[in-house]
Amino acid sequence: MTQSDVDTVRFAVDGAVATITFDKPGRGNAMDPQMQVHYGDLLGKASADPRVRAVVVTGSGRSFCPGADLGLLADVSSSTTAPPEHEGFRNVLAATYADVPVVAAINGGCAGLGFVIACAADVRFAAAGAKFTTAFARRGLIAEYGIAKLLPELVGRGRALDLLLSGRTFTAEQAHEYGLVQEVVPAEELPLRAHAYATELATYSAPRSMALMKRQVAREAGLSLEEAAREATALMLDSFGRPELPEGLASWEERRAPDFPPYQGDS
Amino acid sequence: MTQSDVDTVRFAVDGAVATITFDKPGRGNAMDPQMQVHYGDLLGKASADPRVRAVVVTGSGRSFCPGADLGLLADVSSSTTAPPEHEGFRNVLAATYADVPVVAAINGGCAGLGFVIACAADVRFAAAGAKFTTAFARRGLIAEYGIAKLLPELVGRGRALDLLLSGRTFTAEQAHEYGLVQEVVPAEELPLRAHAYATELATYSAPRSMALMKRQVAREAGLSLEEAAREATALMLDSFGRPELPEGLASWEERRAPDFPPYQGDS
Amino acid sequence: MTQSDVDTVRFAVDGAVATITFDKPGRGNAMDPQMQVHYGDLLGKASADPRVRAVVVTGSGRSFCPGADLGLLADVSSSTTAPPEHEGFRNVLAATYADVPVVAAINGGCAGLGFVIACAADVRFAAAGAKFTTAFARRGLIAEYGIAKLLPELVGRGRALDLLLSGRTFTAEQAHEYGLVQEVVPAEELPLRAHAYATELATYSAPRSMALMKRQVAREAGLSLEEAAREATALMLDSFGRPELPEGLASWEERRAPDFPPYQGDS
Repeated sequence: MTQSDVDTVRFAVDGAVATITFDKPGRGNAMDPQMQVHYGDLLGKASADPRVRAVVVTGSGRSFCPGADLGLLADVSSSTTAPPEHEGFRNVLAATYADVPVVAAINGGCAGLGFVIACAADVRFAAAGAKFTTAFARRGLIAEYGIAKLLPELVGRGRALDLLLSGRTFTAEQAHEYGLVQEVVPAEELPLRAHAYATELATYSAPRSMALMKRQVAREAGLSLEEAAREATALMLDSFGRPELPEGLASWEERRAPDFPPYQGDS
Repeated sequence: MTQSDVDTVRFAVDGAVATITFDKPGRGNAMDPQMQVHYGDLLGKASADPRVRAVVVTGSGRSFCPGADLGLLADVSSSTTAPPEHEGFRNVLAATYADVPVVAAINGGCAGLGFVIACAADVRFAAAGAKFTTAFARRGLIAEYGIAKLLPELVGRGRALDLLLSGRTFTAEQAHEYGLVQEVVPAEELPLRAHAYATELATYSAPRSMALMKRQVAREAGLSLEEAAREATALMLDSFGRPELPEGLASWEERRAPDFPPYQGDS
Repeated sequence: MTQSDVDTVRFAVDGAVATITFDKPGRGNAMDPQMQVHYGDLLGKASADPRVRAVVVTGSGRSFCPGADLGLLADVSSSTTAPPEHEGFRNVLAATYADVPVVAAINGGCAGLGFVIACAADVRFAAAGAKFTTAFARRGLIAEYGIAKLLPELVGRGRALDLLLSGRTFTAEQAHEYGLVQEVVPAEELPLRAHAYATELATYSAPRSMALMKRQVAREAGLSLEEAAREATALMLDSFGRPELPEGLASWEERRAPDFPPYQGDS
């Protein structure tokens, strides 16, 4: 991977929070295949880094990510470029595979593939006035990368069908009303607000708890409540013997920040 | 089917938008078995018509549909009339089987079976002040035709149980707050607004995209995100070789309305 | 079970509504294992009592239930106390096993295990200003007792992950905005309001309808819409021959309260 490829997705660590920034000036951070791979790699790297306890994903300039580069889509359509490979969804949905929590800080235009990346994050903050669209139906495409599953889980089936079928543009304020975005803040405050939320996760929540909860939410949706409760009971009993619980209780009783160990898988 | 039966569900096509109207004056559009069959037939006909790219379902007068005709229910209860047949749900849920998008324009009272028909549509608009109720629990009935699955997907589990268990009446404004109805407009503006939305779908969204998205939303809910993404990847790669994509890209770059082909199944 | 154990969960019947009250003064109604068992037993008893047609669950004083008693958690962590047994979720989720509808009247602090108990109820009312938190991640625990399944069904996946991963405190007003709580009322009005809602269920909704609807909502979520509709059709046809329907129709036509039989299982 060349240096210029790498530069289109920037990575920085500040304390326990990593920030991944789509940065392709002049193309509004439009995605090319190398950027997708690089985004997946960086998120995997952040998740494996014991210093990193939360990740913020954002865009440079006035756009988050407008989706796939249209020039590349045109090439794919006329067969001059190889299509994305079959496992490419692992990069687009990288936030769902990461053990660390991922906060999308949607600073501006968020469409198509960029919309899927935002929906795959755990929590979404958006800049006031930012524009959103699923876009796919207006390009003659289908609901890509599992967004037909993700979006109804985020906003309900009625609103999801409205947004998918129409491909219409909507604002951050509407996205908040729909339940898609958890908080809207003025554009100039977004980086600080998203970083503060990520820092709160990194400071007060046990990394092991967050990693297991992300897996639980993904897995338990496909179980009956009784099956889910049975699996959660096994995880609960196991958690009683781990170092996170006494530290969680002691820090709470002593009204201080906890000192949880990093999480790098259960032994 | 006699002419009078046919007349209780009217059908009209205006441009690319078909309108299906429940029209049984004096009974407030209460449903009888022939109307259900006719509704299913008309929606199937609209979906198969290459001219039709979106459908609006509404009621005549001041009612959308108050549910099954109570006289008929009384007959069923006292066994003087044959009960609805086992596959009757295919008519009630016809909107979910249609390839075209279906917009419910809920002009007034919407209860019981009428409530299920509205919930089975893809998107719901309602007239200000329109009254809704699930009604079933107050008649001693159960959650009919899959509404126990549909309603939680539309409004969340807590509100769905509230509305099903209580059978209480609520307004269009509350329905909007709950996420059941996507937009509330003054009654006199409803026909125009619903038609404008349907026209937007018919004008800008590829019929093939909409047909596949409807199936994706229905199917992917039962898959894991990874399975959903894998199936969506296969659909995406296939869509790259179809005529909708180059037209979607060209129309977008040329800032004109697209000229998508009708959709009549994949060859 | 000793008298003092029994007293920590009070039980009273007023007309057709039973009220179960967590009452452990000095510990803010914090849960111990005996209370959990007793809560499950009382809810099972209420559900089996033909006089009882709706249940309200609430807390005494200014707290609903702050979760497991921290002293007990500390003992479990240091292995001086036996851990909760594997089937303990049947008590915590007792509201989901009950045939009668269960209304949570959340009068104050609602955290951890108490939060799960509230989410397992069918409908939630809360006192203005009441504080909520999932709490688990801040104690180093996991998403206990199926809350990783329940919470996304109540508030959507984005808000559920926010609340689970952060363990942050939020108010009744926010809980209402998220869709978690169906109604917020001033604290002094909460007992009356919750009782009035439960009385409405007990008065107008058929006990058999409510029991079957609760099972339908739980079961149909795991089916395709067509499977759900097929099962609901069988239940509907069966309901046509039962005594609830003629009484539901007659009371509605005569504009009087229905006189539905109690429900004690289908023969």
